[in-house]
Amino acid sequence: MLNEREIIHYLQTNFPQHIGDDATTIVGPNKQHYVITKDLLVEDIHFRSAYVSPASLAHKALHVNLSDIAAMGANPLFIMCGIAIPLHHAGYASQLLQELTQICHKANLPLIGGDTTGSPDKLFLSITAIGISTAATLKYRNTANIGDIIGVIGNLGIAHLGLLAYENSLSGFEAYQEPFLHPIAKTCEGLWLGQRLEVTSMMDLSDGLLIDLQRLCIASKVAGNIHLEKLQPTPEFVKACTALGLDPINIMLTGGEDYGLLFTSNPDHYSTLAQDFFQTFHQPIKQLGLITPGEGVHLLEQGQHKHLNLKPFSHFSEE
Amino acid sequence: MLNEREIIHYLQTNFPQHIGDDATTIVGPNKQHYVITKDLLVEDIHFRSAYVSPASLAHKALHVNLSDIAAMGANPLFIMCGIAIPLHHAGYASQLLQELTQICHKANLPLIGGDTTGSPDKLFLSITAIGISTAATLKYRNTANIGDIIGVIGNLGIAHLGLLAYENSLSGFEAYQEPFLHPIAKTCEGLWLGQRLEVTSMMDLSDGLLIDLQRLCIASKVAGNIHLEKLQPTPEFVKACTALGLDPINIMLTGGEDYGLLFTSNPDHYSTLAQDFFQTFHQPIKQLGLITPGEGVHLLEQGQHKHLNLKPFSHFSEE
Repeated sequence: MLNEREIIHYLQTNFPQHIGDDATTIVGPNKQHYVITKDLLVEDIHFRSAYVSPASLAHKALHVNLSDIAAMGANPLFIMCGIAIPLHHAGYASQLLQELTQICHKANLPLIGGDTTGSPDKLFLSITAIGISTAATLKYRNTANIGDIIGVIGNLGIAHLGLLAYENSLSGFEAYQEPFLHPIAKTCEGLWLGQRLEVTSMMDLSDGLLIDLQRLCIASKVAGNIHLEKLQPTPEFVKACTALGLDPINIMLTGGEDYGLLFTSNPDHYSTLAQDFFQTFHQPIKQLGLITPGEGVHLLEQGQHKHLNLKPFSHFSEE
Repeated sequence: MLNEREIIHYLQTNFPQHIGDDATTIVGPNKQHYVITKDLLVEDIHFRSAYVSPASLAHKALHVNLSDIAAMGANPLFIMCGIAIPLHHAGYASQLLQELTQICHKANLPLIGGDTTGSPDKLFLSITAIGISTAATLKYRNTANIGDIIGVIGNLGIAHLGLLAYENSLSGFEAYQEPFLHPIAKTCEGLWLGQRLEVTSMMDLSDGLLIDLQRLCIASKVAGNIHLEKLQPTPEFVKACTALGLDPINIMLTGGEDYGLLFTSNPDHYSTLAQDFFQTFHQPIKQLGLITPGEGVHLLEQGQHKHLNLKPFSHFSEE
C-alpha cells in the first residue's frame, strides 16, 4: 500500500528543495517568507459527522493547519478553504462554513479564497493556511544536530484517548475528548521558539511522537533516543489507559492528533531556553531525549535499549 | 440546497476584500503579487476513474488550476497537491502522483508541498497553484465597465460534448473527448491579456459562458448582453449536437469545463487588441456582446431579446 512516507519520499526525490516540512516557503515582501500549508480533513478518516459538530470541525480544521504554521516558527496571516459537500450534508456544511468564517474573523485571519463543490458521499475539507516569517526565524525538520536535546511542548497521547472514547462511545473520558475535538495550535509557542537560535529544528506532533520524531531524524540524517522515564504519564492518564486495557507509555509514543510541537535544542543553551519558556508560557518543555549519530528512533529505559511492540498511528491503516 | 454562489456570497459578505476572483492575491517580493488558487477534483463529480486515466487526471487537475492563474493575468510558479486516496485506488493514485510530478517537472513548476491521506471510498484531489504578477497587470472580475465589449478565447461547449460522449459511451466524438480530458490552460494568452490596459476584467470559463458571465456581471454590478448570432457554431459542432438531440447554441452557452478565458475590453481599443491577439496567437477572439447598465445576462438575436430554456451547468446538480 502506498503510504504517506513513500509519497513524500517520491516527491522529495523529484523536488528536493521543496518537500518535507510541515509547510512550504516562498519568498515574500520585505525579505520575509510566506509559509504555506495544506491539510486535508476527510469524513470517516479524520472525523465523524456523528460526534464532531460543524463548529468543532471548523475549529479543528483551522488549528490543524495553524499548527503546521506554528511548527515553522511563523505567524498565520490568511486562510483558504476548499470543501466538497455531499447532498445529505448541505446543512452541516453550511454551518461549518459559518463557524469557520466566525473563527477566522475572531482570529483576524481573513478567509481569502477557496473552492466549493459536490461530493458523492463524504465531506472533504482542504484548508490552506498562509503565514509569514523572516528567514532567520524559520524552523525546519532537517536541521537537528547530533547532541541536541529533544523537547516537546503539549500533550502526548491525550487526543488518542479522546478519539478512542468517541469511537467506542465510552463515558468518563471527557477530559480527553475535549482536547481531541478542539486542539489548540501552539501559535505563540511556535513563534517564540522560532526566534530562539538554540532551537535547531521543529515540527508539529500530528501523527504521534514516534512517527513524527522518525520523520525529523530521517530529514536531519540523525538518530533519536527517547528516554522512556522522561515521559512521566500522570496518574490520571495511567488510570484512564489501564481502564481501556492500554499501556500508557505506548499511547504517549504513538497517539496522534495532539498538535504539540517537537523540537531540538542545542544542549548548551537548553536550560536557559526551558526556564525562559516556562516563565513566558507557564508550561514546561518536556525534555525527552537526545539526538545521536546513526538512524532511527531508539527507546531507552534507564540507559538500556528497550523494545516495545508499537503500532504507529497511520491514517491509512485506520480505514 | 447550498450552492457555490450562495457560499461565495456568504464569504464575500464576511471578507469583502478577498473573495470572488478565480484566485486570491497576496503581496509578494519586489512589489509583485502572488496569485493563489485552490481547486478540488472529486471522483464521480469531476471525473470518473473508469475513463479518466491517472495521466489525464494529473493533466486536468493541473490545468484547471493554471487556468485560474491565467484568468488573473499571472504567471504560474509553484504547485501544491493534497490527495485523499481510497485503498482500492492505491495504484491509480501512485500513477497519478508520478504523472503530476512529471508534468510539473516539464512545465518547470516545482511541486512544493501538500498532504496525503486516506479516503473511505472516493479519490479527492486538491491542487493549489501559486502564480506571480505585478499589480498593474492583475485582472479581476469586478472591473468591467458599461460599454465594454465581451470577448472569449477558446472553445464553447466542446468539452461538454466530450463529457456526454464519455458518460454515455458514445463513439465518433473523439474530437470532443480529447479537449474534455486534456484542457490546456490559456497561460500565455492570460499573461498577454493581463498586460493590455484595455482589458478591463477577466475570468476563466469553467462552468459555462452563461453562469460565468453572470458571475462577472454580478461582481462588476453591470449587465451583459450576448448576441447569439456571434456564437457561430461550426457545422461539425451543429452536426454533433443534432446527433445527440441537443441545441448547439444552448450547449455553447451552458457547457462547462472548456477552460477558455472570458474578458471585457474597452470598445475604443478593441479592434487593435483583437488584431494584435490574432497576430500573436493565430487564433481569434470571439466578440460575443456588450456590457450594459443593469443586472443579469440577456440573450439577444438580431437585436431582439430572446428567451431560451437553459439549465446552467452546476457541480451540485450533477450528483
